[in-house]
Amino acid sequence: MKHARIRYQGEVHNVTVEDANAVRLADGTLLAEDQVEWLPPATGSMFALGLNYADHAAELAFKAPTEPLVFIKAPNTYTGHRQITWRPDNVAYMHYECELVAVIGKTARNVKREDALDYVAGYTVCNDYAIRDYLENYYRPNLRVKNRDCTTPVGPYIIDRSQIADPQNLKLRTWINGELRQEGTTADMIFDIPFLIEYLSAFMTLQPGDMIATGTPEGLADVVPGDEVVVEVEGVGRLVNTIVSEADFFAAKNAAVAK
Amino acid sequence: MKHARIRYQGEVHNVTVEDANAVRLADGTLLAEDQVEWLPPATGSMFALGLNYADHAAELAFKAPTEPLVFIKAPNTYTGHRQITWRPDNVAYMHYECELVAVIGKTARNVKREDALDYVAGYTVCNDYAIRDYLENYYRPNLRVKNRDCTTPVGPYIIDRSQIADPQNLKLRTWINGELRQEGTTADMIFDIPFLIEYLSAFMTLQPGDMIATGTPEGLADVVPGDEVVVEVEGVGRLVNTIVSEADFFAAKNAAVAK
Repeated sequence: MKHARIRYQGEVHNVTVEDANAVRLADGTLLAEDQVEWLPPATGSMFALGLNYADHAAELAFKAPTEPLVFIKAPNTYTGHRQITWRPDNVAYMHYECELVAVIGKTARNVKREDALDYVAGYTVCNDYAIRDYLENYYRPNLRVKNRDCTTPVGPYIIDRSQIADPQNLKLRTWINGELRQEGTTADMIFDIPFLIEYLSAFMTLQPGDMIATGTPEGLADVVPGDEVVVEVEGVGRLVNTIVSEADFFAAKNAAVAK
Repeated sequence: MKHARIRYQGEVHNVTVEDANAVRLADGTLLAEDQVEWLPPATGSMFALGLNYADHAAELAFKAPTEPLVFIKAPNTYTGHRQITWRPDNVAYMHYECELVAVIGKTARNVKREDALDYVAGYTVCNDYAIRDYLENYYRPNLRVKNRDCTTPVGPYIIDRSQIADPQNLKLRTWINGELRQEGTTADMIFDIPFLIEYLSAFMTLQPGDMIATGTPEGLADVVPGDEVVVEVEGVGRLVNTIVSEADFFAAKNAAVAK
Protein backbone atom coordinates (compact mmCIF):
# COMPACT_ATOMS: atom_id res chain seq x y z
CA MET A 1 0.00 0.00 0.00
CA LYS A 2 1.09 3.58 -0.67
CA HIS A 3 0.26 6.34 1.83
CA ALA A 4 0.37 10.07 1.15
CA ARG A 5 -0.63 13.37 2.69
CA ILE A 6 -2.33 15.83 0.38
CA ARG A 7 -4.29 19.07 0.57
CA TYR A 8 -7.59 19.21 -1.28
CA GLN A 9 -10.11 22.04 -1.11
CA GLY A 10 -8.17 23.54 1.79
CA GLU A 11 -8.13 20.40 3.96
CA VAL A 12 -5.23 18.06 4.68
CA HIS A 13 -6.03 14.37 4.05
CA ASN A 14 -4.19 11.13 4.74
CA VAL A 15 -4.83 9.11 1.60
CA THR A 16 -3.87 5.94 -0.19
CA VAL A 17 -2.35 6.14 -3.65
CA GLU A 18 -3.46 3.98 -6.59
CA ASP A 19 -2.40 3.56 -10.22
CA ALA A 20 -1.05 6.67 -11.97
CA ASN A 21 -0.80 8.34 -8.55
CA ALA A 22 -4.57 8.67 -8.26
CA VAL A 23 -5.46 9.48 -4.68
CA ARG A 24 -8.22 7.77 -2.66
CA LEU A 25 -9.73 9.86 0.14
CA ALA A 26 -11.14 8.22 3.27
CA ASP A 27 -14.70 8.72 1.94
CA GLY A 28 -13.83 6.76 -1.22
CA THR A 29 -13.46 9.74 -3.59
CA LEU A 30 -10.79 9.12 -6.23
CA LEU A 31 -8.80 12.17 -7.44
CA ALA A 32 -6.24 12.44 -10.22
CA GLU A 33 -2.59 13.23 -9.40
CA ASP A 34 -2.94 16.83 -10.62
CA GLN A 35 -6.13 17.60 -8.70
CA VAL A 36 -4.42 17.67 -5.31
CA GLU A 37 -1.52 19.44 -3.59
CA TRP A 38 1.04 16.85 -2.50
CA LEU A 39 2.54 17.35 0.95
CA PRO A 40 5.58 15.60 2.44
CA PRO A 41 4.30 12.12 3.42
CA ALA A 42 6.06 12.22 6.81
CA THR A 43 6.73 15.16 9.11
CA GLY A 44 9.12 13.86 11.78
CA SER A 45 12.81 14.69 12.08
CA MET A 46 14.99 14.06 9.06
CA PHE A 47 18.43 12.58 9.60
CA ALA A 48 20.42 12.91 6.38
CA LEU A 49 23.60 11.13 5.42
CA GLY A 50 26.62 12.82 3.88
CA LEU A 51 28.98 10.88 1.63
CA ASN A 52 27.22 7.54 2.01
CA TYR A 53 28.17 6.33 -1.48
CA ALA A 54 31.87 5.83 -2.11
CA ASP A 55 31.61 6.94 -5.75
CA HIS A 56 30.02 10.24 -4.69
CA ALA A 57 32.71 10.82 -2.06
CA ALA A 58 35.36 10.21 -4.71
CA GLU A 59 33.56 12.60 -7.10
CA LEU A 60 33.97 15.32 -4.47
CA ALA A 61 37.58 14.29 -3.78
CA PHE A 62 36.76 13.14 -0.25
CA LYS A 63 37.77 9.87 1.39
CA ALA A 64 34.86 7.56 2.13
CA PRO A 65 33.83 7.94 5.78
CA THR A 66 34.51 5.24 8.36
CA GLU A 67 31.50 6.26 10.47
CA PRO A 68 28.13 7.65 9.34
CA LEU A 69 28.14 11.41 8.73
CA VAL A 70 24.69 12.52 9.76
CA PHE A 71 23.14 15.96 9.78
CA ILE A 72 19.66 17.18 10.65
CA LYS A 73 17.26 18.94 8.31
CA ALA A 74 14.54 21.11 9.85
CA PRO A 75 10.93 20.80 8.63
CA ASN A 76 11.08 24.18 6.83
CA THR A 77 13.09 22.33 4.16
CA TYR A 78 10.41 19.71 3.41
CA THR A 79 8.06 20.02 0.48
CA GLY A 80 5.95 17.58 -1.55
CA HIS A 81 5.69 15.98 -4.98
CA ARG A 82 5.05 18.33 -7.93
CA GLN A 83 5.95 21.41 -5.87
CA ILE A 84 8.51 24.09 -6.68
CA THR A 85 11.89 24.78 -5.16
CA TRP A 86 13.47 28.19 -5.55
CA ARG A 87 17.09 28.69 -6.47
CA PRO A 88 18.92 31.72 -5.02
CA ASP A 89 19.75 34.07 -7.89
CA ASN A 90 23.25 34.91 -6.75
CA VAL A 91 24.76 31.42 -6.55
CA ALA A 92 26.87 29.43 -9.01
CA TYR A 93 25.86 25.87 -8.19
CA MET A 94 22.74 24.15 -6.89
CA HIS A 95 22.65 20.38 -7.27
CA TYR A 96 20.02 17.67 -6.80
CA GLU A 97 20.59 14.50 -4.76
CA CYS A 98 18.35 11.49 -5.38
CA GLU A 99 17.97 9.51 -2.16
CA LEU A 100 16.09 6.55 -0.72
CA VAL A 101 14.40 7.50 2.56
CA ALA A 102 13.54 4.98 5.29
CA VAL A 103 10.52 6.12 7.32
CA ILE A 104 10.41 4.94 10.93
CA GLY A 105 7.22 3.12 11.98
CA LYS A 106 7.72 2.54 15.70
CA THR A 107 9.85 3.95 18.49
CA ALA A 108 13.40 2.69 18.10
CA ARG A 109 16.05 2.79 20.81
CA ASN A 110 19.05 0.44 21.10
CA VAL A 111 17.89 -1.61 18.13
CA LYS A 112 20.25 -4.23 16.71
CA ARG A 113 20.79 -4.26 12.96
CA GLU A 114 19.27 -7.73 12.56
CA ASP A 115 15.97 -6.38 13.94
CA ALA A 116 16.22 -2.91 12.42
CA LEU A 117 13.88 -3.28 9.45
CA ASP A 118 11.05 -4.17 11.84
CA TYR A 119 11.16 -0.50 12.85
CA VAL A 120 10.72 0.76 9.29
CA ALA A 121 7.15 1.60 8.22
CA GLY A 122 8.12 2.01 4.60
CA TYR A 123 10.16 3.93 2.10
CA THR A 124 9.94 7.15 0.17
CA VAL A 125 12.18 9.27 -2.06
CA CYS A 126 13.75 12.66 -1.47
CA ASN A 127 15.73 15.16 -3.44
CA ASP A 128 18.17 16.72 -0.99
CA TYR A 129 19.20 19.84 -2.91
CA ALA A 130 22.42 21.61 -1.90
CA ILE A 131 23.71 25.10 -2.61
CA ARG A 132 27.30 24.17 -3.11
CA ASP A 133 28.59 27.77 -3.04
CA TYR A 134 28.34 27.81 0.75
CA LEU A 135 29.96 24.46 1.31
CA GLU A 136 33.01 24.55 3.57
CA ASN A 137 32.78 21.01 4.81
CA TYR A 138 30.80 18.06 3.50
CA TYR A 139 30.80 16.28 6.82
CA ARG A 140 28.20 18.50 8.38
CA PRO A 141 27.11 21.04 5.79
CA ASN A 142 25.98 24.40 7.09
CA LEU A 143 22.43 25.73 7.00
CA ARG A 144 22.95 27.91 3.93
CA VAL A 145 23.85 24.75 1.99
CA LYS A 146 21.17 22.40 3.30
CA ASN A 147 18.46 24.14 5.31
CA ARG A 148 16.74 26.51 2.89
CA ASP A 149 12.95 26.47 2.62
CA CYS A 150 11.50 23.80 0.35
CA THR A 151 14.87 22.45 -0.78
CA THR A 152 13.96 18.90 0.20
CA PRO A 153 11.08 17.52 -1.84
CA VAL A 154 9.92 14.24 -0.25
CA GLY A 155 7.44 11.71 -1.63
CA PRO A 156 5.21 11.27 -3.47
CA TYR A 157 4.14 8.70 -0.86
CA ILE A 158 5.39 6.10 1.61
CA ILE A 159 5.29 2.58 0.22
CA ASP A 160 4.91 -0.17 2.83
CA ARG A 161 8.09 -1.99 3.78
CA SER A 162 6.49 -5.32 2.83
CA GLN A 163 6.40 -4.22 -0.81
CA ILE A 164 10.16 -3.68 -1.09
CA ALA A 165 11.91 -7.05 -1.09
CA ASP A 166 15.43 -5.65 -0.75
CA PRO A 167 15.95 -1.94 -0.05
CA GLN A 168 19.68 -2.41 -0.67
CA ASN A 169 19.23 -3.37 -4.31
CA LEU A 170 17.26 -0.52 -5.90
CA LYS A 171 18.22 1.70 -8.82
CA LEU A 172 18.39 5.45 -8.19
CA ARG A 173 17.97 7.78 -11.16
CA THR A 174 17.66 11.53 -11.73
CA TRP A 175 16.44 13.23 -14.91
CA ILE A 176 16.68 16.93 -15.73
CA ASN A 177 14.17 17.95 -18.39
CA GLY A 178 13.83 14.32 -19.42
CA GLU A 179 17.56 13.67 -19.73
CA LEU A 180 19.06 10.99 -17.44
CA ARG A 181 21.79 12.69 -15.38
CA GLN A 182 22.38 10.49 -12.33
CA GLU A 183 22.26 6.73 -12.00
CA GLY A 184 23.28 4.49 -9.13
CA THR A 185 22.10 1.69 -6.89
CA THR A 186 21.39 1.45 -3.17
CA ALA A 187 23.65 -1.63 -3.23
CA ASP A 188 26.54 0.87 -3.16
CA MET A 189 25.63 2.52 0.16
CA ILE A 190 28.56 2.48 2.56
CA PHE A 191 26.29 2.24 5.63
CA ASP A 192 23.07 0.37 4.89
CA ILE A 193 19.70 1.04 6.50
CA PRO A 194 19.98 -1.62 9.25
CA PHE A 195 23.41 -0.27 10.20
CA LEU A 196 22.11 3.32 10.30
CA ILE A 197 19.17 2.41 12.54
CA GLU A 198 21.49 0.56 14.91
CA TYR A 199 23.95 3.47 14.89
CA LEU A 200 21.39 6.23 15.50
CA SER A 201 19.24 4.33 17.98
CA ALA A 202 22.30 3.60 20.13
CA PHE A 203 22.37 7.22 21.31
CA MET A 204 18.93 8.62 20.51
CA THR A 205 15.34 7.52 20.05
CA LEU A 206 13.92 7.36 16.55
CA GLN A 207 10.21 8.20 16.53
CA PRO A 208 7.42 7.15 14.16
CA GLY A 209 7.51 9.52 11.22
CA ASP A 210 11.23 10.22 11.50
CA MET A 211 13.10 9.85 8.22
CA ILE A 212 16.59 8.64 7.38
CA ALA A 213 17.74 10.09 4.05
CA THR A 214 20.43 7.64 3.04
CA GLY A 215 22.66 9.71 0.76
CA THR A 216 23.24 9.95 -2.98
CA PRO A 217 25.54 8.34 -5.54
CA GLU A 218 27.75 10.21 -8.03
CA GLY A 219 26.44 12.20 -10.95
CA LEU A 220 25.60 15.65 -9.61
CA ALA A 221 25.03 18.67 -11.84
CA ASP A 222 23.77 22.22 -11.57
CA VAL A 223 20.06 22.99 -11.94
CA VAL A 224 18.60 26.33 -13.05
CA PRO A 225 15.17 28.01 -13.06
CA GLY A 226 12.77 26.27 -15.41
CA ASP A 227 14.31 22.83 -14.94
CA GLU A 228 12.02 19.91 -14.21
CA VAL A 229 13.90 17.54 -11.93
CA VAL A 230 12.70 13.96 -11.47
CA VAL A 231 14.28 11.67 -8.89
CA GLU A 232 13.26 8.02 -8.86
CA VAL A 233 14.01 5.06 -6.65
CA GLU A 234 13.11 1.80 -8.39
CA GLY A 235 9.88 0.34 -7.04
CA VAL A 236 9.58 3.09 -4.42
CA GLY A 237 8.52 6.21 -6.29
CA ARG A 238 9.14 8.96 -8.79
CA LEU A 239 9.24 12.49 -7.36
CA VAL A 240 8.84 15.52 -9.63
CA ASN A 241 9.96 19.05 -8.79
CA THR A 242 10.47 22.31 -10.70
CA ILE A 243 13.13 24.94 -10.09
CA VAL A 244 12.19 28.63 -10.04
CA SER A 245 14.17 31.79 -9.38
CA GLU A 246 14.04 32.91 -5.74
CA ALA A 247 13.67 36.56 -6.76
CA ASP A 248 10.79 35.70 -9.11
CA PHE A 249 9.17 33.54 -6.42
CA PHE A 250 9.18 36.31 -3.81
CA ALA A 251 8.15 38.98 -6.32
CA ALA A 252 5.12 36.86 -7.31
CA LYS A 253 4.34 36.11 -3.68
CA ASN A 254 4.53 39.76 -2.66
CA ALA A 255 2.36 40.74 -5.65
CA ALA A 256 -0.23 38.15 -4.59
CA VAL A 257 -0.23 39.49 -1.02
CA ALA A 258 -0.60 43.08 -2.27
CA LYS A 259 -3.72 42.23 -4.30
CA MET B 1 3.43 37.23 31.37
CA LYS B 2 5.07 33.82 31.55
CA HIS B 3 3.75 30.95 29.43
CA ALA B 4 4.50 27.28 29.96
CA ARG B 5 3.42 23.85 28.78
CA ILE B 6 2.90 21.28 31.49
CA ARG B 7 1.40 17.81 31.90
CA TYR B 8 -1.04 17.33 34.76
CA GLN B 9 -3.13 14.23 35.40
CA GLY B 10 -2.14 12.90 31.99
CA GLU B 11 -3.19 15.98 30.00
CA VAL B 12 -1.01 18.63 28.38
CA HIS B 13 -1.96 22.21 29.30
CA ASN B 14 -0.86 25.62 28.11
CA VAL B 15 -0.61 27.62 31.32
CA THR B 16 0.53 30.91 32.75
CA VAL B 17 3.18 30.96 35.47
CA GLU B 18 2.90 33.03 38.64
CA ASP B 19 5.10 33.65 41.72
CA ALA B 20 7.31 30.75 42.81
CA ASN B 21 6.55 29.04 39.48
CA ALA B 22 2.98 28.29 40.49
CA VAL B 23 1.01 27.32 37.43
CA ARG B 24 -2.45 28.64 36.52
CA LEU B 25 -4.59 26.35 34.36
CA ALA B 26 -7.15 27.74 31.91
CA ASP B 27 -9.96 26.87 34.36
CA GLY B 28 -8.31 28.97 37.09
CA THR B 29 -6.81 26.11 39.12
CA LEU B 30 -3.47 27.08 40.71
CA LEU B 31 -0.87 24.31 41.09
CA ALA B 32 2.51 24.40 42.81
CA GLU B 33 5.72 23.99 40.80
CA ASP B 34 6.23 20.42 41.98
CA GLN B 35 2.67 19.25 41.26
CA VAL B 36 3.12 19.31 37.49
CA GLU B 37 5.43 17.85 34.86
CA TRP B 38 7.15 20.68 33.01
CA LEU B 39 7.41 20.29 29.25
CA PRO B 40 9.55 22.33 26.85
CA PRO B 41 7.62 25.63 26.44
CA ALA B 42 8.10 25.66 22.64
CA THR B 43 8.28 22.77 20.20
CA GLY B 44 9.45 24.26 16.90
CA SER B 45 12.86 23.86 15.34
CA MET B 46 15.87 24.78 17.44
CA PHE B 47 18.73 26.64 15.78
CA ALA B 48 21.72 26.58 18.11
CA LEU B 49 24.82 28.72 17.96
CA GLY B 50 28.33 27.43 18.33
CA LEU B 51 31.11 29.65 19.67
CA ASN B 52 28.96 32.76 19.99
CA TYR B 53 30.91 34.14 22.95
CA ALA B 54 34.54 35.04 22.29
CA ASP B 55 35.67 33.98 25.78
CA HIS B 56 34.17 30.50 25.25
CA ALA B 57 35.82 30.17 21.84
CA ALA B 58 39.15 31.12 23.43
CA GLU B 59 38.56 28.59 26.25
CA LEU B 60 38.32 25.88 23.57
CA ALA B 61 41.34 27.28 21.70
CA PHE B 62 39.24 28.29 18.70
CA LYS B 63 39.28 31.59 16.88
CA ALA B 64 36.06 33.57 17.24
CA PRO B 65 33.88 33.02 14.16
CA THR B 66 33.34 35.72 11.56
CA GLU B 67 29.93 34.35 10.59
CA PRO B 68 27.31 32.61 12.79
CA LEU B 69 27.95 28.89 13.28
CA VAL B 70 24.50 27.39 13.49
CA PHE B 71 23.44 23.77 13.92
CA ILE B 72 20.02 22.16 14.28
CA LYS B 73 18.77 20.20 17.27
CA ALA B 74 15.96 17.71 16.71
CA PRO B 75 12.96 17.65 19.11
CA ASN B 76 14.10 14.34 20.67
CA THR B 77 16.68 16.43 22.53
CA TYR B 78 14.17 18.78 24.20
CA THR B 79 13.01 18.26 27.76
CA GLY B 80 11.47 20.47 30.43
CA HIS B 81 12.23 22.12 33.77
CA ARG B 82 12.91 19.76 36.71
CA GLN B 83 13.39 16.76 34.41
CA ILE B 84 16.34 14.40 34.25
CA THR B 85 19.04 14.07 31.64
CA TRP B 86 21.02 10.87 31.38
CA ARG B 87 24.79 10.78 31.00
CA PRO B 88 26.31 7.95 28.95
CA ASP B 89 28.33 5.76 31.31
CA ASN B 90 31.31 5.31 29.03
CA VAL B 91 32.26 8.94 28.40
CA ALA B 92 34.84 11.20 30.01
CA TYR B 93 33.23 14.59 29.67
CA MET B 94 29.68 15.94 29.56
CA HIS B 95 29.31 19.67 30.00
CA TYR B 96 26.41 22.06 30.52
CA GLU B 97 25.88 25.24 28.48
CA CYS B 98 23.67 27.99 29.89
CA GLU B 99 21.99 29.85 27.03
CA LEU B 100 19.42 32.56 26.38
CA VAL B 101 16.82 31.38 23.87
CA ALA B 102 14.79 33.72 21.66
CA VAL B 103 11.41 32.20 20.76
CA ILE B 104 9.94 33.29 17.43
CA GLY B 105 6.41 34.72 17.57
CA LYS B 106 5.53 35.27 13.92
CA THR B 107 6.70 34.04 10.54
CA ALA B 108 10.00 35.72 9.71
CA ARG B 109 11.55 35.85 6.24
CA ASN B 110 13.99 38.51 5.00
CA VAL B 111 13.70 40.49 8.23
CA LYS B 112 16.11 43.38 8.80
CA ARG B 113 17.89 43.53 12.12
CA GLU B 114 16.22 46.82 13.11
CA ASP B 115 12.82 45.09 12.92
CA ALA B 116 13.96 41.70 14.18
CA LEU B 117 12.78 41.86 17.79
CA ASP B 118 9.20 42.39 16.54
CA TYR B 119 9.36 38.74 15.47
CA VAL B 120 10.32 37.50 18.94
CA ALA B 121 7.45 36.29 21.15
CA GLY B 122 9.64 36.07 24.21
CA TYR B 123 12.62 34.44 25.83
CA THR B 124 13.45 31.27 27.65
CA VAL B 125 16.52 29.45 28.92
CA CYS B 126 18.17 26.26 27.77
CA ASN B 127 20.97 24.02 28.89
CA ASP B 128 22.58 22.71 25.73
CA TYR B 129 24.55 19.74 27.12
CA ALA B 130 27.39 18.33 25.04
CA ILE B 131 29.22 15.00 25.19
CA ARG B 132 32.65 16.32 24.44
CA ASP B 133 34.22 12.89 23.86
CA TYR B 134 32.68 12.74 20.38
CA LEU B 135 33.63 16.25 19.37
CA GLU B 136 35.70 16.46 16.21
CA ASN B 137 34.67 19.92 15.20
CA TYR B 138 32.94 22.69 17.14
CA TYR B 139 31.60 24.38 14.06
CA ARG B 140 28.88 21.84 13.44
CA PRO B 141 29.06 19.25 16.20
CA ASN B 142 27.93 15.75 15.32
CA LEU B 143 24.78 14.05 16.60
CA ARG B 144 26.56 12.00 19.25
CA VAL B 145 27.74 15.27 20.84
CA LYS B 146 24.53 17.28 20.56
CA ASN B 147 21.50 15.23 19.58
CA ARG B 148 21.00 12.72 22.39
CA ASP B 149 17.56 12.34 23.93
CA CYS B 150 16.67 14.88 26.61
CA THR B 151 20.05 16.62 26.55
CA THR B 152 18.47 20.03 26.02
CA PRO B 153 16.34 21.12 28.95
CA VAL B 154 14.36 24.23 27.92
CA GLY B 155 12.24 26.46 30.10
CA PRO B 156 10.76 26.71 32.60
CA TYR B 157 8.56 29.10 30.58
CA ILE B 158 8.59 31.77 27.88
CA ILE B 159 8.58 35.27 29.28
CA ASP B 160 7.03 37.91 27.02
CA ARG B 161 9.45 40.05 25.07
CA SER B 162 7.91 43.21 26.58
CA GLN B 163 9.21 42.18 30.00
CA ILE B 164 12.87 42.07 28.96
CA ALA B 165 14.13 45.61 28.45
CA ASP B 166 17.45 44.60 26.89
CA PRO B 167 18.10 40.95 25.98
CA GLN B 168 21.74 41.86 25.29
CA ASN B 169 22.47 42.81 28.88
CA LEU B 170 21.49 39.81 31.00
CA LYS B 171 23.63 37.76 33.38
CA LEU B 172 24.00 34.05 32.64
CA ARG B 173 24.89 31.75 35.52
CA THR B 174 25.21 28.00 36.10
CA TRP B 175 25.36 26.24 39.45
CA ILE B 176 26.27 22.60 40.06
CA ASN B 177 24.96 21.36 43.42
CA GLY B 178 24.60 24.94 44.57
CA GLU B 179 28.11 26.02 43.59
CA LEU B 180 28.43 28.78 40.99
CA ARG B 181 30.46 27.38 38.09
CA GLN B 182 29.71 29.56 35.05
CA GLU B 183 29.07 33.28 34.85
CA GLY B 184 28.76 35.57 31.85
CA THR B 185 26.59 38.17 30.21
CA THR B 186 24.63 38.27 26.98
CA ALA B 187 26.42 41.57 26.32
CA ASP B 188 29.37 39.41 25.21
CA MET B 189 27.56 37.62 22.37
CA ILE B 190 29.46 37.94 19.10
CA PHE B 191 26.27 37.86 17.00
CA ASP B 192 23.31 39.36 18.85
CA ILE B 193 19.68 38.29 18.47
CA PRO B 194 18.70 40.90 15.85
CA PHE B 195 21.73 39.94 13.75
CA LEU B 196 20.89 36.22 14.04
CA ILE B 197 17.27 36.75 12.96
CA GLU B 198 18.42 38.80 9.97
CA TYR B 199 21.04 36.18 9.09
CA LEU B 200 18.76 33.13 9.35
CA SER B 201 15.69 34.74 7.80
CA ALA B 202 17.73 35.76 4.74
CA PHE B 203 17.79 32.15 3.54
CA MET B 204 15.00 30.39 5.44
CA THR B 205 11.69 31.09 7.13
CA LEU B 206 11.55 31.17 10.90
CA GLN B 207 8.19 29.91 12.18
CA PRO B 208 6.29 30.71 15.39
CA GLY B 209 7.65 28.41 18.07
CA ASP B 210 11.11 28.13 16.52
CA MET B 211 13.93 28.77 18.95
CA ILE B 212 17.33 30.38 18.57
CA ALA B 213 19.71 29.13 21.27
CA THR B 214 22.28 31.89 21.35
CA GLY B 215 25.39 30.13 22.69
CA THR B 216 27.21 30.01 26.00
CA PRO B 217 30.08 31.92 27.63
CA GLU B 218 33.19 30.36 29.16
CA GLY B 219 33.19 28.29 32.33
CA LEU B 220 32.34 24.75 31.30
CA ALA B 221 32.91 21.74 33.52
CA ASP B 222 32.02 18.05 33.63
CA VAL B 223 28.79 16.88 35.24
CA VAL B 224 28.18 13.42 36.70
CA PRO B 225 25.18 11.38 37.87
CA GLY B 226 23.57 12.88 40.93
CA ASP B 227 24.45 16.46 40.03
CA GLU B 228 21.73 19.09 40.19
CA VAL B 229 22.44 21.62 37.44
CA VAL B 230 20.77 25.03 37.50
CA VAL B 231 21.09 27.44 34.58
CA GLU B 232 19.73 30.94 34.97
CA VAL B 233 19.35 33.93 32.71
CA GLU B 234 18.73 37.08 34.71
CA GLY B 235 15.10 38.16 34.58
CA VAL B 236 14.22 35.33 32.18
CA GLY B 237 14.21 32.15 34.22
CA ARG B 238 15.97 29.54 36.30
CA LEU B 239 15.97 26.02 34.85
CA VAL B 240 16.70 23.02 37.07
CA ASN B 241 17.86 19.62 35.83
CA THR B 242 19.35 16.48 37.37
CA ILE B 243 21.92 14.14 35.84
CA VAL B 244 21.42 10.37 36.05
CA SER B 245 23.39 7.44 34.66
CA GLU B 246 22.13 6.25 31.29
CA ALA B 247 22.55 2.60 32.27
CA ASP B 248 20.57 3.17 35.48
CA PHE B 249 17.90 5.07 33.58
CA PHE B 250 17.31 2.30 31.05
CA ALA B 251 17.50 -0.44 33.69
CA ALA B 252 14.79 1.33 35.69
CA LYS B 253 12.74 1.93 32.56
CA ASN B 254 12.98 -1.70 31.45
CA ALA B 255 12.08 -2.89 34.96
CA ALA B 256 9.00 -0.65 34.90
CA VAL B 257 7.95 -2.01 31.50
CA ALA B 258 8.44 -5.61 32.67
CA LYS B 259 6.09 -5.13 35.66
